[in-house]
Amino acid sequence: MASLLVLFACHSNQQAEKSTTTDHSKNLIQFVNPFVGTKNMGHTFPGAAAPFGMVQLSPETNQEPFNKDGRYNPDTYAYCSGYQYADSTIFGFSHTHFSGTGHSDLGDFLIMPTTGALQLEPGKAGQAQSGFHSSFSHDNEEAEPGYYQVKLDDYNIHAELTASERVGFHQYTFPEAEQAHIILDLVSNIYNHENKNVWTFVRVENDSTVTGFRQTNGWARTRTVFFAMQFSKAFSSYGHKKYDDVTYNGFYKRFDESENFPEMAGKNIRAYFNFATQADEKIKIKFALSAVSTQGALKNLAAEIPHWDFDQTKQETQAKWNHELAKIDAKMPTPEQQETFYTAMYHTMLNPVVYEDVDGQYRGLDQNIYQSEGFTNYTIFSLWDTYRALHPLFNLTQPARNNDMIKSMLAHHDQSVHKMLPIWSHYSNENWCMIGYHSVTVLADAIAKGTTDVDLKRALKACQNTATVPYYDGLDSYLKLGYVSNEASAYSVSNTLEYAYDDWCIAQIAHEAGDQEAYQAYLKRSENYENVFDAKSNYMRPRLTNGDWRQNFNPLDTHGQGFIEGNAWNYGLYVPHNIDHMISLMGDKDEFTDHLDRIFTTEIEDKYIEQNEDITRDGIIGNYVHGNEPGHHIPYLYNWTNSPWKTQERVRMIMDTMYSNAKDGLCGNDDAGQMSAWYIFSALGFYPVLPGSADYSIGSPLVQEASIHLDNRQTFTVKAINQNPEHIYIQKVELNGEVLNFPTISHQDIMKGGTLTFYMGSAPNKTWGIRN
Amino acid sequence: MASLLVLFACHSNQQAEKSTTTDHSKNLIQFVNPFVGTKNMGHTFPGAAAPFGMVQLSPETNQEPFNKDGRYNPDTYAYCSGYQYADSTIFGFSHTHFSGTGHSDLGDFLIMPTTGALQLEPGKAGQAQSGFHSSFSHDNEEAEPGYYQVKLDDYNIHAELTASERVGFHQYTFPEAEQAHIILDLVSNIYNHENKNVWTFVRVENDSTVTGFRQTNGWARTRTVFFAMQFSKAFSSYGHKKYDDVTYNGFYKRFDESENFPEMAGKNIRAYFNFATQADEKIKIKFALSAVSTQGALKNLAAEIPHWDFDQTKQETQAKWNHELAKIDAKMPTPEQQETFYTAMYHTMLNPVVYEDVDGQYRGLDQNIYQSEGFTNYTIFSLWDTYRALHPLFNLTQPARNNDMIKSMLAHHDQSVHKMLPIWSHYSNENWCMIGYHSVTVLADAIAKGTTDVDLKRALKACQNTATVPYYDGLDSYLKLGYVSNEASAYSVSNTLEYAYDDWCIAQIAHEAGDQEAYQAYLKRSENYENVFDAKSNYMRPRLTNGDWRQNFNPLDTHGQGFIEGNAWNYGLYVPHNIDHMISLMGDKDEFTDHLDRIFTTEIEDKYIEQNEDITRDGIIGNYVHGNEPGHHIPYLYNWTNSPWKTQERVRMIMDTMYSNAKDGLCGNDDAGQMSAWYIFSALGFYPVLPGSADYSIGSPLVQEASIHLDNRQTFTVKAINQNPEHIYIQKVELNGEVLNFPTISHQDIMKGGTLTFYMGSAPNKTWGIRN
Repeated sequence: MASLLVLFACHSNQQAEKSTTTDHSKNLIQFVNPFVGTKNMGHTFPGAAAPFGMVQLSPETNQEPFNKDGRYNPDTYAYCSGYQYADSTIFGFSHTHFSGTGHSDLGDFLIMPTTGALQLEPGKAGQAQSGFHSSFSHDNEEAEPGYYQVKLDDYNIHAELTASERVGFHQYTFPEAEQAHIILDLVSNIYNHENKNVWTFVRVENDSTVTGFRQTNGWARTRTVFFAMQFSKAFSSYGHKKYDDVTYNGFYKRFDESENFPEMAGKNIRAYFNFATQADEKIKIKFALSAVSTQGALKNLAAEIPHWDFDQTKQETQAKWNHELAKIDAKMPTPEQQETFYTAMYHTMLNPVVYEDVDGQYRGLDQNIYQSEGFTNYTIFSLWDTYRALHPLFNLTQPARNNDMIKSMLAHHDQSVHKMLPIWSHYSNENWCMIGYHSVTVLADAIAKGTTDVDLKRALKACQNTATVPYYDGLDSYLKLGYVSNEASAYSVSNTLEYAYDDWCIAQIAHEAGDQEAYQAYLKRSENYENVFDAKSNYMRPRLTNGDWRQNFNPLDTHGQGFIEGNAWNYGLYVPHNIDHMISLMGDKDEFTDHLDRIFTTEIEDKYIEQNEDITRDGIIGNYVHGNEPGHHIPYLYNWTNSPWKTQERVRMIMDTMYSNAKDGLCGNDDAGQMSAWYIFSALGFYPVLPGSADYSIGSPLVQEASIHLDNRQTFTVKAINQNPEHIYIQKVELNGEVLNFPTISHQDIMKGGTLTFYMGSAPNKTWGIRN
Repeated sequence: MASLLVLFACHSNQQAEKSTTTDHSKNLIQFVNPFVGTKNMGHTFPGAAAPFGMVQLSPETNQEPFNKDGRYNPDTYAYCSGYQYADSTIFGFSHTHFSGTGHSDLGDFLIMPTTGALQLEPGKAGQAQSGFHSSFSHDNEEAEPGYYQVKLDDYNIHAELTASERVGFHQYTFPEAEQAHIILDLVSNIYNHENKNVWTFVRVENDSTVTGFRQTNGWARTRTVFFAMQFSKAFSSYGHKKYDDVTYNGFYKRFDESENFPEMAGKNIRAYFNFATQADEKIKIKFALSAVSTQGALKNLAAEIPHWDFDQTKQETQAKWNHELAKIDAKMPTPEQQETFYTAMYHTMLNPVVYEDVDGQYRGLDQNIYQSEGFTNYTIFSLWDTYRALHPLFNLTQPARNNDMIKSMLAHHDQSVHKMLPIWSHYSNENWCMIGYHSVTVLADAIAKGTTDVDLKRALKACQNTATVPYYDGLDSYLKLGYVSNEASAYSVSNTLEYAYDDWCIAQIAHEAGDQEAYQAYLKRSENYENVFDAKSNYMRPRLTNGDWRQNFNPLDTHGQGFIEGNAWNYGLYVPHNIDHMISLMGDKDEFTDHLDRIFTTEIEDKYIEQNEDITRDGIIGNYVHGNEPGHHIPYLYNWTNSPWKTQERVRMIMDTMYSNAKDGLCGNDDAGQMSAWYIFSALGFYPVLPGSADYSIGSPLVQEASIHLDNRQTFTVKAINQNPEHIYIQKVELNGEVLNFPTISHQDIMKGGTLTFYMGSAPNKTWGIRN
């Protein structure tokens, strides 16, 4: 993978002080490189955020912030998080971002400091002076958890950013300038299009406080974000320009609302605030968000950052990061891997985000305002991705937050007009992205692991409601036929497989809730994967409503074959709840091993890759596509064959080639932390192949040693004896000194605390772990 | 006036039972004809409302509900309240209206019942079957306070409407129909234009409950209204059509959201709900509004109309009307005048409207949600109109509500980014219509009359803040020069006169608040009218910044002469707080009498009228324009001359010719009740020439007898002895048996209770009332 050739990123002044010592009282943020994934398709952002904070304040380098024809710029996809490392132009700093997603939205409230004659057009990237943007150099750029700085070369302004959960803190050090400006650009959006802004509203409350809101129609159809903005210095004048055809009556008054008129409204507004600055004068901005109201934003601002001490906020936020990162004390073989590991940890704590005001008020899915009772409300649920490893990781490292996330999902259900749990939801909207109903998996996993206190009957009812909405994505067909027909969905096989697995999860919840009828019903539904298995071709394959197999079937093709982000070869192996039976359908264990081998070795033609916009050749091993999620369990499936050693080999291969601490150190979208969570589990030596159960499947640890500090005050330590880049094979495993013969440990094993000791070697122990 | 020739309106089945008996335990709503003002430019509406209710549910007959070029249809002005009596097509029934305004907005949530094949285009008026509209006949139409019914001929549907304060109640009696529909048209707006809708959001909560909201950018720039709608019968299916370019992602799902998909959103939506109906089957709809949220609308619905008994709500609302109408028991000389009087009473209780949920939550001017503490929040303040007579009338008949309105204005001030009291405000927005800052007048009037308990210092501060905003409508010029310069405003003379008078009102408040400094300062400001009086031309006249008088001055012209809705001849007499001095500036009392005489007798050329879109020749007497407000005090100005008898003559003339009980019984816009309030005061024999003082100026009563039932349980009775159409002149006046020699009574005289007895005759008593 090309990324291994990339020089070690000098992302921090503290770089030289790095060590691999992992005492959790020490500074772990030094091992985090927020630039990882900012090059190519990682879709991460380098800006400043608190753990799980709503404000994620980060530079925008998108070239075409406004696309005149109303359609997406072809390059837009690269800017899901607003930043690409290859760029050399910054358009400003906005407050909301997704981390690693494969579609986008947000980018709210772009702030840009400038000097000289006021320029309100953003300009074209790379064309100096064409707008208010500035060129910058990575030499003058630095990113740490909770801190970002860059020099804006066009203006000689030193920009620094930090953030609490709900408040962004900007610190701009200006040169001497008669004309200095802070631009508040409400036009700029991530995934902008001409009609994305629905409405904007700005009030200049006094000479240093501004409030307002923006309503957008993007991936979220009906989304409103409120803000309150305070300057450390009074502006001398201000104004705005409208970029829409909305005229202001100001009836008979002929107000010149363009300058020093304190209320502005319209679709597309850029406001500016003017100052004169001394050399090295700092203008600071505290910028609070709320999904509720401007009053809510003002409350958040006052509660979280009542002072003007930028460094204090930076230190507090970095202390929060150290606290969260210390949940796992890992010692990796190399400094690069140390950075890769903690950057992965960092990337698992950017989404979901806290989505309520400091007083617990939040905007529900029905756009009404609710008070969170007994939980903290979260948003940004990329569930088709994150149910796999991110939420299971939370059950180890963030069980309280995960419990809150589950309660947020149940609140979503209660507010849903469909009475559905979230599919892919953000900011009080369901965006319906991807397939399945994987909230049920997150619930089942937490219930299986004892990390949630939700009422089981309520949880079950929400799952049942979700799993029976006939107009949802082929579900009517699934309920009638036992599979999603080719006619009912373009992704009928993927749908069927995901539903069957999700139904297994619901069955587990029903079992825990003591509802035998529901348990049996959903257990039956969980067998529906059988209905799309074609014994003749030996593949899962699209089926017509009349029961016939669809013709023109190509198991390698990822397009038009009933799968999404996958093909029959890889996605067809998605029966995590009944792997043994799936294998038996396809033949015997060795034949299945052969199938797995071929996945990792068959070079597929470019035409099958090109259709996959977020994966490059670098993210693919044969026909295994690590940049997409449906195969994330595949390397672990050898554990169900006679060759568990191949799991060890593949897992280490993937960690070595698909992850690094480089800018392009992610081989595909990080997907709200799922890719990173895969790495963390795999580096620890085990992986949750079946979320909804308490089992983990053993891989091959990359850590030399790692301690998971659990919420119950126990510590679970993984030790890898004789660990090195060649020693990828397990020779022996001991759990608390007892030999472990099978490649499975349970969540309860971990929660008790103790030590899992791997004895590694350069040659496989081909007999270890085989389950009769 | 043409209206006198119009046949007596048969607006109600109870018409035959009418009598002029005015015992207030009896049915007074029988004397109200809601059709008065619906023909030509009265801009009233005939639909159903509770007194001061937010829901004003009324038919829309506008021909062009959606104007494709984005500009106002030239005919739009006639449809400020949605209805014109000359029309024969109904497009549906919407829930919010202004009453009598000269500009418009609202028309929210149009409901139309239809049968047969679904038709979602409204169609063109008069073109049968061209859309979902229906023809109707006035023969089948009836309107009472709180009740409206009409037969929709195209569908043979009997439509009935009633309303509580926050809930509209529809009752549609259908024929037998396999296909019956209720259309919920969110596209329709009053004063529609292509971009008026900002966003709409609809949720089908279950098979008989729908919620949602609409956000518009019209006269109110940022306006959102929420609704909750309940059907008495479950619909069998539903759907919607979008009339915008907003596409719905429903990502990957390819939802067919057009039918039976329970969440809809976009700019322009028409939804429909399908039924099958038996002959004479009633489908009822309860439709609640809220400015806060759909939850608020649901709360309002449950609290105000928890049942399905249409007649009960009608009866309750009509009882409320009888209660309010009974505040004045009037016996008029003729049945026609009886109806004119009580219809005027009715029209004074449609605006302002209650603007808070049943729990006191309301949307403030800053778009935040507030809880009203110690008052009921009101909106729709057409203050340039209503400070003159409507709010003074409230101080007699609705002091508690007026006190709440004042507190609503103070809340507006507190929420205003300008820190200004309302100018012309509605639905959490300032629309800035017309001139001056007449909230201060409403405050001063209530303070002078002892009807408000607001803190005087708070009130004064709000007035001072309002009166010192430099960017407001020439105020900077006014503050610097002592007059609004011709350069600073197109209505510079009107502005100066209104500001000077308003400043006098602020001075009165300062005096009451014990702030001598402010008192003196504002008293000084109140003399600024002198600065626009040109002794050479003997007119108030536009003045340049350099102090010169503007040239090209025509005192008859209403356009481009520094006045708004008036000219130098009539608007130039607007110095209500210093009439004697104004007269002395213009000459002696007899010369001033001559000026007044010429106002009423000089026929002005058509060219001066045509510029006045809301006034017809019928609304004009010479150069006196009763359809506009700046002259409303003019007929009373003879009381400051040696000819008070001419006030009596003119007042009776205006009542006779400018008001009737006909459809076109208003000579101009009713202006939220101001025109009607002028009539009520004048009919009672006195008028508040100087709001902000406790004085009323005596005119000539039209009542035979009238009792004002005051909140302090006193009754003040006006008796007109020998009253008849020829006996328009006062011979003698007694207050509680004491002879009254001067044409003034005070509010305190009234509040004590008692009797004001007029002795009328056919010839003037030319000496009565002259103030030496």
